[in-house]
Amino acid sequence: MTQPRLLGLSGSLRRASNSTAVLRGLHDALAPRAALSIFALHGIPLYNEDDDGEHAPESVRALRSAIETSDGLIMISPEYNHGMSGVLKNALDWASRPFGRSALRGKPVLTMTTSPAFTGGVRAQQQMNETLVAMPARLVLRPQIVIGGVHEKVSDGRLVDEAALRFALAGVDDLLDEVRAARFLRAAA
Amino acid sequence: MTQPRLLGLSGSLRRASNSTAVLRGLHDALAPRAALSIFALHGIPLYNEDDDGEHAPESVRALRSAIETSDGLIMISPEYNHGMSGVLKNALDWASRPFGRSALRGKPVLTMTTSPAFTGGVRAQQQMNETLVAMPARLVLRPQIVIGGVHEKVSDGRLVDEAALRFALAGVDDLLDEVRAARFLRAAA
Repeated sequence: MTQPRLLGLSGSLRRASNSTAVLRGLHDALAPRAALSIFALHGIPLYNEDDDGEHAPESVRALRSAIETSDGLIMISPEYNHGMSGVLKNALDWASRPFGRSALRGKPVLTMTTSPAFTGGVRAQQQMNETLVAMPARLVLRPQIVIGGVHEKVSDGRLVDEAALRFALAGVDDLLDEVRAARFLRAAA
Repeated sequence: MTQPRLLGLSGSLRRASNSTAVLRGLHDALAPRAALSIFALHGIPLYNEDDDGEHAPESVRALRSAIETSDGLIMISPEYNHGMSGVLKNALDWASRPFGRSALRGKPVLTMTTSPAFTGGVRAQQQMNETLVAMPARLVLRPQIVIGGVHEKVSDGRLVDEAALRFALAGVDDLLDEVRAARFLRAAA
């Protein structure tokens, strides 16, 4: 198939984010098999229904459009307080609208979490999946890509640990299968 | 005891928010037994660890201080995508820091959810409680105040339905018990 266009969203905004570093590592490892572009969430405002609709903020329209034109998404978050970051949940609240016509509807999505702890943020990932079921997105549920001890696996802003990278790439393989399945279903519709 | 000072946080920012309307209804029904002030989350930025610490944003310092000086909190959220709003989660991510020294640590908190649906946002409430356990806050777990069909119970920006108000006030009674318990434990320490 033509080169799949993947969109990456990171739930952490800090410059030295380990989650964003995983996306950068995947970007390099995937080229030229798939193109992964990262959409930074810094400019997304707090969700307010009064501001949504025809005159939705420019950054929100850009996010929805980037999701719409992608073949699939990789979402990654640190675990904050047993869940995904509010930053990512807030972006997903915008992306879920308009109700019933979300750009994420039927879109293949692979979720990942990172943590300095050995648990790898697995509770946050459960929450991300539950949130995405609501759209409903086309979730890749196995393997569950949880990366523990992540601070020791990142160097110069990129995931460099070979085992972790191989593990994450196995998830992306399944995501690319879902991208093919979604294309097949669209073509057959 | 002296009049308890309660702080109300609403996960919805829209002007006609039903969740905020519940807080306003409680404010009126509780006076003068307890003082409930509402802290609007509109000005809280997206969480970014790079911006935290000594030079944390003014609005974040105001939120932490309002929590610190309150005797207990009422948090209420609509259900967005099976969870609490990203707006509220983002505020709680800020409030949870600094790690181990959150203003919410040991603070009595009553969670509530609202929904136009009959389910009342109960999944969101589960998520709020799980998030607050991480601080750890002093949670009031029963009764679970979920208000379904909320749009029919609000008028002029206030909860007016008598049965719903009675139900919510029963939750506040338990919150006030926890406020007394927390005061007792502090005095005995």
